Amino acid sequence: MNKKRYNIAIVGATGAVGRKISSVLSERRFPVNILKLLASSNSIGKKILFNGKETVVELLTKDCFEGIDIALFSAGGSISKEFAPHAIKSGAVVIDNSSAFRNDDSVPLVIPEINPADIKFHRGIISNPNCTTAIMLTVLNSIYKYSRIEKIIVSSYQSVSGAGQNGIVELEDQIKCINDRKEPIISKFLYQIAYNVIPHIDSFTENGFTKEEMKMVDETRKILHDYKIRVSATCVRVPVISVHSMSVTVITEKNISVEKVRELLSNSDGVTVLDDVAKNIYPMPINSEGKFDCFAGRIRQDLVFKNAISMWICGDQLLKGAALNAVQIAELLIKNTNR
Amino acid sequence: MNKKRYNIAIVGATGAVGRKISSVLSERRFPVNILKLLASSNSIGKKILFNGKETVVELLTKDCFEGIDIALFSAGGSISKEFAPHAIKSGAVVIDNSSAFRNDDSVPLVIPEINPADIKFHRGIISNPNCTTAIMLTVLNSIYKYSRIEKIIVSSYQSVSGAGQNGIVELEDQIKCINDRKEPIISKFLYQIAYNVIPHIDSFTENGFTKEEMKMVDETRKILHDYKIRVSATCVRVPVISVHSMSVTVITEKNISVEKVRELLSNSDGVTVLDDVAKNIYPMPINSEGKFDCFAGRIRQDLVFKNAISMWICGDQLLKGAALNAVQIAELLIKNTNR
Repeated sequence: MNKKRYNIAIVGATGAVGRKISSVLSERRFPVNILKLLASSNSIGKKILFNGKETVVELLTKDCFEGIDIALFSAGGSISKEFAPHAIKSGAVVIDNSSAFRNDDSVPLVIPEINPADIKFHRGIISNPNCTTAIMLTVLNSIYKYSRIEKIIVSSYQSVSGAGQNGIVELEDQIKCINDRKEPIISKFLYQIAYNVIPHIDSFTENGFTKEEMKMVDETRKILHDYKIRVSATCVRVPVISVHSMSVTVITEKNISVEKVRELLSNSDGVTVLDDVAKNIYPMPINSEGKFDCFAGRIRQDLVFKNAISMWICGDQLLKGAALNAVQIAELLIKNTNR
Repeated sequence: MNKKRYNIAIVGATGAVGRKISSVLSERRFPVNILKLLASSNSIGKKILFNGKETVVELLTKDCFEGIDIALFSAGGSISKEFAPHAIKSGAVVIDNSSAFRNDDSVPLVIPEINPADIKFHRGIISNPNCTTAIMLTVLNSIYKYSRIEKIIVSSYQSVSGAGQNGIVELEDQIKCINDRKEPIISKFLYQIAYNVIPHIDSFTENGFTKEEMKMVDETRKILHDYKIRVSATCVRVPVISVHSMSVTVITEKNISVEKVRELLSNSDGVTVLDDVAKNIYPMPINSEGKFDCFAGRIRQDLVFKNAISMWICGDQLLKGAALNAVQIAELLIKNTNR
């Protein structure tokens, strides 16, 4: 892959994440030669603007990866499982945004600010982490490096676009129905999400936690290479368009002051500290949307545990939680091969 | 106060909580003789339906409590501080929904299911707890009695009506503005609440926690008579009309199984267990609104701590978090004096 410009495929190009991938590639001036936008038959012929040029969406087939250097998959686990092998066979490296391969020991799971070296061990597939995990760990990384984190308790406030473009449409349609005093239509989510919160994302596992919550446990361990760290998560859908927020308490090995945490986070790649409560400054969806960085605020000494810090984190889950991190992995890939 | 029917005053009768107080008095067939609806000059002449009869709102003055047996205050701390002494002087017992007297050692802070005996020590005022604290403790009460709770970590998802009637109007107006592609008007909350979450309720204190969060610490200790229990809270406003939700982890002295917790909660006054994840059953604002009970679900063994249970709690904060609990205190008062 030792070239100056690369042939890129986006699988699921018309989805909420797929669209963000093409715009992030453009915004970060990724050296694209050919961009192939792939989707199911429903989306064939749709046009997406890339670098000022309309690009037509093509049908995803097993033979469509011919000549592709990097294939960014974001069309769900079953599509990844079916088509990633064909992409690899054609010589592409797959960066997969689904959960299909994340727990596979032979597949690196990478946040470029945290474990960039892991991509070297790939055998054709590199997994992009779960959105909430990616945002949380990007913020916690520098604290972890300063003083190992032993325990994390997190409750999330996850936006509807985490469920894709249909999630956005459903929230907006439901709000219109309710305003017009009509019965809201429920299809993407299990229950009405307008004016509601739903403590259920992805399916339930045997221990009573959801798969979404267990991703935060398992992926945190894999990314940090620390199988002793304990994580307990409650993942909740809220009626917000994009940006995932979370209330996080971390218990560290060493004692660490609030000032030190602010200093560490301020010097972290991909993190912006928004923390001045005297001026009512803290992260929220409305000030984090569309931003590449993850945001931390409300940093305070926890009142329950020794050596513990509580904080509030926001991040655009379509960006650092998905498209941005995937493109950053692609950047790492071409940087490693160009050297 | 040894009578069959009582003269009741509601201070702040036209507010979100005040309106609920009159409807709860009616629904629970409280033995009302005269109901006096009191408010500031802005609301004079408004009519509120009580037991099928229109009752006219009167001006709150220091002399208006003549002949009143119980005065239910819900018009904010400064009104309580100014007018409660006049109500007491006129011979009324004050049940105060504001935070004005909650931390006063001489004022009982009561959840009737938990510490009913405390009302006996009142000197004219009984405080009604903070909404989130009341809902959380009503659910946790039976666990605490079975095995003392040592630590509570809670993140809340609080609805806009917690900020009063204006909170509801502001959310609905902002959503209309955004749908019409107009700039939303911000007045009650510090930031846009439509399609947003705000990690800030009440003002900040020196330790970085808000007053709302510190109420959960201080009031939990006072209600449980346990000044060793440790509580850490993150209180967050979400775009929901009514019902406060919370993600709660409790660390208990003894080990306690999920089954035992379900059994304890199922037998608790004021609590309904909605917990069958195989059937996607758990509490949410849409199924808890308008209900007297508090709801618990997603009960599971926590993954981080020994002897710890995580769960999800919902409760209508205008009811158990405010009006219902206040009326229950009034019921206790007349029961005690009638015996």
